[in-house]
Amino acid sequence: MTKPTPRKLADYPHHMPIQTRWIDNDVYGHVNNVVYYEYFDTVVNSFLIDQGLLEIGKSETIGLVVETGCSYFAPISFPENVTAGLRVAKIGTSSVRYEIGLFTDAQPNACAQGHFVHVYVDAASRKPKPLSADMRSILEGIKP
Amino acid sequence: MTKPTPRKLADYPHHMPIQTRWIDNDVYGHVNNVVYYEYFDTVVNSFLIDQGLLEIGKSETIGLVVETGCSYFAPISFPENVTAGLRVAKIGTSSVRYEIGLFTDAQPNACAQGHFVHVYVDAASRKPKPLSADMRSILEGIKP
Amino acid sequence: MTKPTPRKLADYPHHMPIQTRWIDNDVYGHVNNVVYYEYFDTVVNSFLIDQGLLEIGKSETIGLVVETGCSYFAPISFPENVTAGLRVAKIGTSSVRYEIGLFTDAQPNACAQGHFVHVYVDAASRKPKPLSADMRSILEGIKP
Amino acid sequence: MTKPTPRKLADYPHHMPIQTRWIDNDVYGHVNNVVYYEYFDTVVNSFLIDQGLLEIGKSETIGLVVETGCSYFAPISFPENVTAGLRVAKIGTSSVRYEIGLFTDAQPNACAQGHFVHVYVDAASRKPKPLSADMRSILEGIKP
Repeated sequence: MTKPTPRKLADYPHHMPIQTRWIDNDVYGHVNNVVYYEYFDTVVNSFLIDQGLLEIGKSETIGLVVETGCSYFAPISFPENVTAGLRVAKIGTSSVRYEIGLFTDAQPNACAQGHFVHVYVDAASRKPKPLSADMRSILEGIKP
Repeated sequence: MTKPTPRKLADYPHHMPIQTRWIDNDVYGHVNNVVYYEYFDTVVNSFLIDQGLLEIGKSETIGLVVETGCSYFAPISFPENVTAGLRVAKIGTSSVRYEIGLFTDAQPNACAQGHFVHVYVDAASRKPKPLSADMRSILEGIKP
Repeated sequence: MTKPTPRKLADYPHHMPIQTRWIDNDVYGHVNNVVYYEYFDTVVNSFLIDQGLLEIGKSETIGLVVETGCSYFAPISFPENVTAGLRVAKIGTSSVRYEIGLFTDAQPNACAQGHFVHVYVDAASRKPKPLSADMRSILEGIKP
Repeated sequence: MTKPTPRKLADYPHHMPIQTRWIDNDVYGHVNNVVYYEYFDTVVNSFLIDQGLLEIGKSETIGLVVETGCSYFAPISFPENVTAGLRVAKIGTSSVRYEIGLFTDAQPNACAQGHFVHVYVDAASRKPKPLSADMRSILEGIKP
């Protein structure tokens, strides 16, 4: 059970503020481990939407999640504000590995960092599709 | 099943931005009816924390929810931004009725509006406690 | 802020077990007020699905939520098991008012009770549609 | 991005039914990737509670989550019923690696499988504590 080293915000080219919610805290007074993945999902999809790569309910290509993971280093608690860092670690034929770090004002190291692997599929058939040249180029732009 | 009339943002003295999340949308492509209450909870408790009336895990007085309700007028969808309006409708001996409206840039009327009744209790015994003069005065400040 | 009287399980013709989750408990050690609505949503839609009145992603008629509300009488905590009671209080031309009570083994009175108003609409146009005779007859079957 | 092989339910010594909820499904009509972790959390903590190893709000030792991960092989959708399989993969001085598989009636292979690493700490100081002999013995009982 070797622990990864926490990254810095500067290790992630794209940043997004995340607002915590009252319900995010669990009985131990901190954001529950599950909720970090709500943040990941939001960061990745917001980036795709902002870049014109995803329009919910309309896009012919959608990303299905095939793998996720997270290491937790320090607690986060509502009402703290969080900054999420996003980068693309690997671009395959039809899949992308995103990496996300979550940061608070309390310290320079990531409170948690994780990954999120999307396979891009045809919205109707749900079969994998090669990434478009446009998407590939945008994703190259947030490689570390 | 008479429907209330949607209010305007100006009907609420206190405003707070709310960030939607990917997971908020349900199979029908809109924020699920349940999630509106996550926003309500966050607005009310953020106000209390900002005003120094609640410190999670430390306050001797906590608010327990005894009643909530919501009317839904128009859908909200991630990644839309939401502005929540908050006002205090009634202040009892130990209870407070908060009213919340949720607004998007798409229209001037509330997309949804609801209420949230807190009874303030001793954190240890969970018995109702009269509101402090300080709290009462702050809550009077956001009456419509 | 008059409180309703808690009902008994026998006041509800249809019953369904609900499984609580670790994440349902909030910082105060009880199921968060928001989560009760996750239970309501599940009870109502499970009933419709079991009765052949809803097939997710296929039905031409879907229920949109226009109003919800809940009164909380006694806390529920994971890992307690909950029994939900469901009844239909009013059947309109295209709308239905469902009422739900939540019960634990700890006491005969409802821990919480609420309502949930669906307007049935065409899945594509999202315009209200009169309830089918079939649906009307099934819903009559769970009137109190 | 090499994919692991889906396990069978028989690969997990402990089984627990999981009830899906309406809200678990996201815009793509399947249980959202985040929600799988709500199931993991529930399975692990239910096991600990049932074995007398955890009493929420009372135990002097609590498990903090330091790492989680999940591979998704096939979708799950509300209202499907899920069976979760649980096993203990590694027992350290104060940490435990749990592995969970999620199964539906539709197929013998796991729809998803993941892990969940708890470090056991003193509830007050939040410093790691060696596992008790009792806990160690119970956990040995669900090693594969």
